[in-house]
Amino acid sequence: MLSSFLSRDSQTKKIQDNITKVEKHFGELCQLFAAYSRKTARLRDKGDLLVKQIELHADTETPELKRGMKEFADHLAKIQDYRHAQVQRLDAKVVEPLKSYGAVVKRKREDVKMTQSAIDKEAKQEAQLEKTRLRNPSDRQIIAESELQRATMDAARTTKQLEETIDEFERQKIRDIKKIFSEFVTVELCFLGKALEVYTSAYQSIQSVDEEADLEVFRSSLHPPDYNSRLGRTNSRTSLDRTFMSTSGTLKVTQKQQNFSFQISFL
Amino acid sequence: MLSSFLSRDSQTKKIQDNITKVEKHFGELCQLFAAYSRKTARLRDKGDLLVKQIELHADTETPELKRGMKEFADHLAKIQDYRHAQVQRLDAKVVEPLKSYGAVVKRKREDVKMTQSAIDKEAKQEAQLEKTRLRNPSDRQIIAESELQRATMDAARTTKQLEETIDEFERQKIRDIKKIFSEFVTVELCFLGKALEVYTSAYQSIQSVDEEADLEVFRSSLHPPDYNSRLGRTNSRTSLDRTFMSTSGTLKVTQKQQNFSFQISFL
Repeated sequence: MLSSFLSRDSQTKKIQDNITKVEKHFGELCQLFAAYSRKTARLRDKGDLLVKQIELHADTETPELKRGMKEFADHLAKIQDYRHAQVQRLDAKVVEPLKSYGAVVKRKREDVKMTQSAIDKEAKQEAQLEKTRLRNPSDRQIIAESELQRATMDAARTTKQLEETIDEFERQKIRDIKKIFSEFVTVELCFLGKALEVYTSAYQSIQSVDEEADLEVFRSSLHPPDYNSRLGRTNSRTSLDRTFMSTSGTLKVTQKQQNFSFQISFL
Repeated sequence: MLSSFLSRDSQTKKIQDNITKVEKHFGELCQLFAAYSRKTARLRDKGDLLVKQIELHADTETPELKRGMKEFADHLAKIQDYRHAQVQRLDAKVVEPLKSYGAVVKRKREDVKMTQSAIDKEAKQEAQLEKTRLRNPSDRQIIAESELQRATMDAARTTKQLEETIDEFERQKIRDIKKIFSEFVTVELCFLGKALEVYTSAYQSIQSVDEEADLEVFRSSLHPPDYNSRLGRTNSRTSLDRTFMSTSGTLKVTQKQQNFSFQISFL
C-alpha cells in the first residue's frame, strides 16, 4: 500500500512540476510576444510620423514630385493601418491566449491540490486499517479488508481523474502552442502579404515622377512673371537657354534713353 | 539696370529659400527614417529574445513539440537575421544619403553666397557707371557704356552659372528623393519577401508537431519505470487504460500474506 502511495505521490509531484513549468514558460512567452507586439506598434507610430512628414514635404514640391510623394505617403499610411491591425491581432490571437493560461494553470493547480489531499486522506485511512488488522480479531479483519478495498478503489479513481485531467492539460498545451504559434505566423504573414502589395504600388508611385516636367515648373518659378509670360509657360526648352552659351554667344543690350534696364534676349 | 538687379536679387533669395527648404525637409526625413530603422532594430532585438525563449522552452518539451519549436525558433532567428540586414540597408541606403545631403546643401549655399556677392559687386559697379554717365562728358560716357556692357555680361554669366547650379541641384533633389524612397521600398520589399518565405516554413514546422506521439511520451514520463517496463515503452495505448473504466470495471486486489501492497492490473 505504501509503495502505491509513494508512486502516486511522486506522480502528483511530477504533475505539479509540469504545471509550474507550463506556467513559467507561458508567462515568459506571453511577455516576449507582448514586447514584440509593442515594438511593432512603435514601428507603426514611426511609420505614421514618416507619412505626415512626407505629406508636409510633398506640399512644398513641384506638381509631379508632389503627386508622387503624396501617393507614396498614402501607400505608406495604408501599410501602417495594416501594421495597426497586425498589432491588434497579435494582442488578441497571441498575447491574450498566453495570458489566459494563467487562469487555466491556476485551475489545474486546484485540481492537483484536491487530489493530493484525497491521496493524503487515503493514506491515513490505510494506516488506520493496517493498525486495525494487527490489533483486532479475524472477524473485524474482514470488515477492514472490505474497507481497504473501497479505499483502494477510491484512490485509484482519484488518481485516474487526475491523470485524465493532466492528460487533457498536456494535450491542450501542445494544441495551444501549435495554435498560438500558428496564429502568430498567420498574423505576420497576413501583414507581409498586404505590405508587399502596397509597397509595390508605392514604388510605382515614386518611380513614375516625371522630373523633366517638374524642372520646367521649377525653372519658371525662379523667374519673374513677365519673363514667364514672354517665354510662355508651355515652353519646353530649359529657361537656361542653351544657345546663351553657344558659339555665337550673342548678348543684346537694349539701351533705352530713360533707364538702363536691359533684357537678355535668348535666341 | 536696377530692375535687373532686383530681379536677380529676388531670384537668389528664392534659391536660398529653396536650399533652406531642402535642408529642412531632408533633415526631417533623415531623422524619421533613422527612427524607423531604429524601431526595426528594436523589433529584431525582441525577435531575438523570443527565439532564445522558444529554444529554452523547447528543451523542456516532449520530442515532437521540441522538434517543432526548435525548427520554429530557427526560422524566427533567420527572420531576425533578415531584419538585421534590413536595418543595415535602411541605414546605408536611406539614412546615410539623406544625412549626406547636409554637405550637399552646405556646398550649394556657398555657391549662392558667392554669386550673391558677385551680384552685389556688380550692383555697385552699375551705380558707379550711372554716376559717371550723369556727371561726365560724352567721350567718357562711351567708356562707361562699354564697361557697363562688360559688367552686364559678367552679371549674366554669374546668374547663369547660379541658375545652372540650382537647376542641377533641383534635378538631383528630385532624382535623390525618387532614389531614396525607392531604395526604402526595395529594402522593405526584400525583407518582406524573405520573411514571407521563412514564416511559411515556420508555420509548417509547428503544424507538423504530432501531438499523439508526444502524449505517449508524456504519459510514460508520469509513471514509475517498472510500470513503463511492464507496459512496454512501445505501448501505443494510452496509459490511462480505457478498459479501467469500462463496463467490466474489473479491479483485482492481490492480497499477499505479508503486506497489503496492491497492484491494479490493467486488463
